[in-house]
Amino acid sequence: MPISGFPEWLPPQRMIEQYALDKIRSTFELYGFAPLETRAVEPLETLLSKGETSKEVYLLRRLQEEDPSARSDDQLGLHFDLTVPFARFVTENHGKLQFPFRRYQIQKVWRGERPQEGRYREFLQADIDVVNRDTLPFHFDTEMPLVIGDAFRSLPIPRAVIQVNNRKVCEGFYRGLGLSDTAQVLRTVDKLDKIGPEKVAAALVETAGATDAQAQACLKLAEISASDGSFVDRVRALGVDDPLLDEGLSELLQVVETAGEHAPGLVRAELKIARGLDYYTGTVYETQLVGYERFGSVCSGGRYETLASVGNTRFPGVGISIGVSRMFGILFGQNALSVSRSVPTCVVVAVPSDDRRGDCERIAMALRRRGIPTEVAPTAAKFGKQIQFADRRGIPYVWFPGAPSSGAAASDTVKDIRSGEQVEADAATWEPPAADLKPVVSAS
Amino acid sequence: MPISGFPEWLPPQRMIEQYALDKIRSTFELYGFAPLETRAVEPLETLLSKGETSKEVYLLRRLQEEDPSARSDDQLGLHFDLTVPFARFVTENHGKLQFPFRRYQIQKVWRGERPQEGRYREFLQADIDVVNRDTLPFHFDTEMPLVIGDAFRSLPIPRAVIQVNNRKVCEGFYRGLGLSDTAQVLRTVDKLDKIGPEKVAAALVETAGATDAQAQACLKLAEISASDGSFVDRVRALGVDDPLLDEGLSELLQVVETAGEHAPGLVRAELKIARGLDYYTGTVYETQLVGYERFGSVCSGGRYETLASVGNTRFPGVGISIGVSRMFGILFGQNALSVSRSVPTCVVVAVPSDDRRGDCERIAMALRRRGIPTEVAPTAAKFGKQIQFADRRGIPYVWFPGAPSSGAAASDTVKDIRSGEQVEADAATWEPPAADLKPVVSAS
Repeated sequence: MPISGFPEWLPPQRMIEQYALDKIRSTFELYGFAPLETRAVEPLETLLSKGETSKEVYLLRRLQEEDPSARSDDQLGLHFDLTVPFARFVTENHGKLQFPFRRYQIQKVWRGERPQEGRYREFLQADIDVVNRDTLPFHFDTEMPLVIGDAFRSLPIPRAVIQVNNRKVCEGFYRGLGLSDTAQVLRTVDKLDKIGPEKVAAALVETAGATDAQAQACLKLAEISASDGSFVDRVRALGVDDPLLDEGLSELLQVVETAGEHAPGLVRAELKIARGLDYYTGTVYETQLVGYERFGSVCSGGRYETLASVGNTRFPGVGISIGVSRMFGILFGQNALSVSRSVPTCVVVAVPSDDRRGDCERIAMALRRRGIPTEVAPTAAKFGKQIQFADRRGIPYVWFPGAPSSGAAASDTVKDIRSGEQVEADAATWEPPAADLKPVVSAS
Repeated sequence: MPISGFPEWLPPQRMIEQYALDKIRSTFELYGFAPLETRAVEPLETLLSKGETSKEVYLLRRLQEEDPSARSDDQLGLHFDLTVPFARFVTENHGKLQFPFRRYQIQKVWRGERPQEGRYREFLQADIDVVNRDTLPFHFDTEMPLVIGDAFRSLPIPRAVIQVNNRKVCEGFYRGLGLSDTAQVLRTVDKLDKIGPEKVAAALVETAGATDAQAQACLKLAEISASDGSFVDRVRALGVDDPLLDEGLSELLQVVETAGEHAPGLVRAELKIARGLDYYTGTVYETQLVGYERFGSVCSGGRYETLASVGNTRFPGVGISIGVSRMFGILFGQNALSVSRSVPTCVVVAVPSDDRRGDCERIAMALRRRGIPTEVAPTAAKFGKQIQFADRRGIPYVWFPGAPSSGAAASDTVKDIRSGEQVEADAATWEPPAADLKPVVSAS
C-alpha cells in the first residue's frame, strides 16, 4: 500500500528524475562544488537547536530496544534538511577541510508532518553551500542564483524565476520604523500569501506591538518587487532610515545586478520573501516555475552567519536547495515531462532458439563494450513477440543474429522497429545514431 | 560528534565513492536495468515478514506524536535491505510494469545493530534484480555475476571473486542424507567460518537431529570449492542421491560455465555459502576482494521464488547487491584508493583586484559553458596566495586575466601549477588535456 507523504515514482519517472539529477550535479561540479553526503540521522538536540521544523522530526528507536523509556539524552532523529547536518559536519571536521568550502549534497530528508496535510514526509533535496571561517565574502550570495539558473536551464522544465530578498532590509526597515520585535514582524509578514494583507496588519498590531501606520508601512515594503535596481528608490520613498536597511539594500542590489548581467530575467527582488526557517540572517531565495507559481517555491535558501561555530570561531555560509521531489511531483502531476523509453536499453538481441543464447550473449557483450546498452531477449519466443518485447519498452533496435551454419549469408541484421528499416550489421562496429543511444527526456 | 555505525566520508572519499557509483550505474544501464528508488520506510509488518534481519529494524515515531503507545498496526520502520521493498513495490505496481522487470536501486539502508558490534547501522547498497510473473528463466541467474564482474572491473579496486552456491544443492543433499530439518542444517553450516567444523558438527547432532556420519557428510559437502565444473563429480562422489540435488547441481553448473566463458576467474562454486537471509531458494552469491577476504563479502544476493506474490500470482526474482559503504569502508581503511584532487574544479580564475571580479566571472562562465569546471578565487589576495588556494586542493590550472587597459599585451594566460608552464590562452577556445578535465581516481 502507498504510504501518504512517501512518494514513489514509476521507472519512467525515476529515469526523468535521474536524468535531471545528473544535469544538476554536472552544473554543480562545473562551479567547483565537491560532493558530500552526511548520515541521515542527527542527535535530537542538534535538530532541535535550529529552525521551526524541529517540531516535525522523526525519532528512531531500535525494535529490540531494551528499555525505550530509559534513554533520552542520546536520541537520534532523521534530518529535516541538509543545511543543519552540513553545519554540524563542518564544525566536526573543520580541521580537515579547505575553506572556503564548497559542497553539493543530494539526499533524502524527512519531516514528520501530519499525514492529512498532503505534504511530502520524505523528499529529495539537492543543495549547494559555501562556508568559510570567520567571514564569507558577499559575492558568494550573488553566485547562488547563477548556479541554479544554469542547472535549471539544462532541464526541459518551465522557466524559473528566483525571488530574492534580504532579511537585513526587513529587519532594518522594521527597526527604523520603531518596531523592536523584528523576528515577530518577519514571521507575521511571512504569512501574507496565506492570510492576506488585512489579517497580517491586524496580527502586526496584536502580536508585534505595531501601530496601524507601522503595520501599513510593513505591508508597503512587502509589496515592492522589481527585476532591476529600481526597488532601492521605492524602499527609500517609504522614508525609513536605518544602517542595517542600507546594508541590506546594498547587498540585495548586488544580487539583482549580478544576475541581470549574467542571466537576464532570472532574478527578481521580492521584498515579501522571508523564509520560515530561523537560521537565515541576510539574503534569502525562493524560486517559482513560470506557470506553476501556485505550487510555491521549488528552490530556496539563504545566508546564515551563525549556524555553525566552534568555540569563538564562526563558519558563516550561504546556500540554496532544489526541492527535487517537490519540483518533479508538480511536473509529473501535470504530465509536463516525458521520456522516449522506459528502460536504458538501446538494443534487444533476439534469440532464434534456446541453443543460440550463448551467441546472443556474445553479441550483447560486444555492443556493451562499446557503450551501447543491450539486453538479450528473455526467451526464444517467436520473433514477433520478441519485437513486441522491445516495442512495449520503447527500445528502438532489435538485433537478429545470422544463422551460424549458412556461410556467406550468415550476417547479423539490426532493425529499427520504429521505421521498419533492417540492415546488415556487425556487433564489433555498428553504432546507433547518437540521439538513440540514451533515452531522451523532454517537455511533453 | 561521530555516531557509531553511521559512517561519513570526507569530500575526497566521497568523490571516490561517487566516481565508483557512476561507473556501477553505467554498467547496470549497459545491461538494461532501469533506475528505481523506493521510499526509505515500510510498514513494520512488511519488514517482519521476511528474513532474520527483522530483529534489527529501526522504528520511526513523530516527535510530536499525540500518544505513541496507542498505535501499533501502522508502525513504520526504515528498510534494512532493498530486496524486500522492491518485492513490495512489484506487488503494488505489477499492473504498471513490463515483465521481466529489470531494475537497479542505489540507496541507503539501516539496521538497528547493537552499537558495540562495530558494524554499520547506515550504509549504501547498489542492487540489481530481475523479476518476472509466474516463472523466471534460469539464465538470469547466470547473468548476475557477469554484470557485477563488469562493474567491478571498471573500478580501480582489487580483483573480485564471486562465490556461488545453490540452496537446492544443500537442501537436496541434506534431504538425500535423511535430514528433514534442512533449514536448521543450512543455518548451522552457515556458521562454519565463525565457529569451525567441530562445533558445526556438534551443533548438527544437537539441533538438527543428525548422526555423526550425517554431520560429517554435511561438512564434506561444505568443503567443496572449484572454479570449474569439477565440483559436480566431487558432490556425486559423496554418494547422496536426490532430485532436488540434481536440479541444484545443474543450475550451479550453468552459472559456473557461463562465467567461465565470458569472465574467466570471476566465479567459483563454493558449497559452504548459504547467506543468512531467509528468502533465497536457489542460487546464492557472495563476493570477496582478493587480498581482502578477511573482511567478508562485499556483494551478495541470490534467487528468491516466493518473496513477492499477489493472490495466486508469484513474482520470482534473482538479484545481487553491492555493499558500497562496506566495500569503500574497507578500502578507505587500507588507504587503497586515491583521487587526484579534492574538488571537481579544473581551473581557478585568479582575481587581480576586487574591481575585476566581474571580468573573472565572465572568464569562468566561458570555460564552464564548454564543460570545464571552474571557480573564481574567493578574494583578490596576492597571486601567490591564490595559487596556493588551487594547490591545496590539487586544482591543476590557474587562469590570469590580462590587464584590461594594456592594448596588445592584454592576453589572458593560464598556468599549469604542477609544471609551472604558463601560456597565453583564450577562455573561448582553451581546453585542458582530457586527463586533467576531471579528478582521476586510482589505486594507491
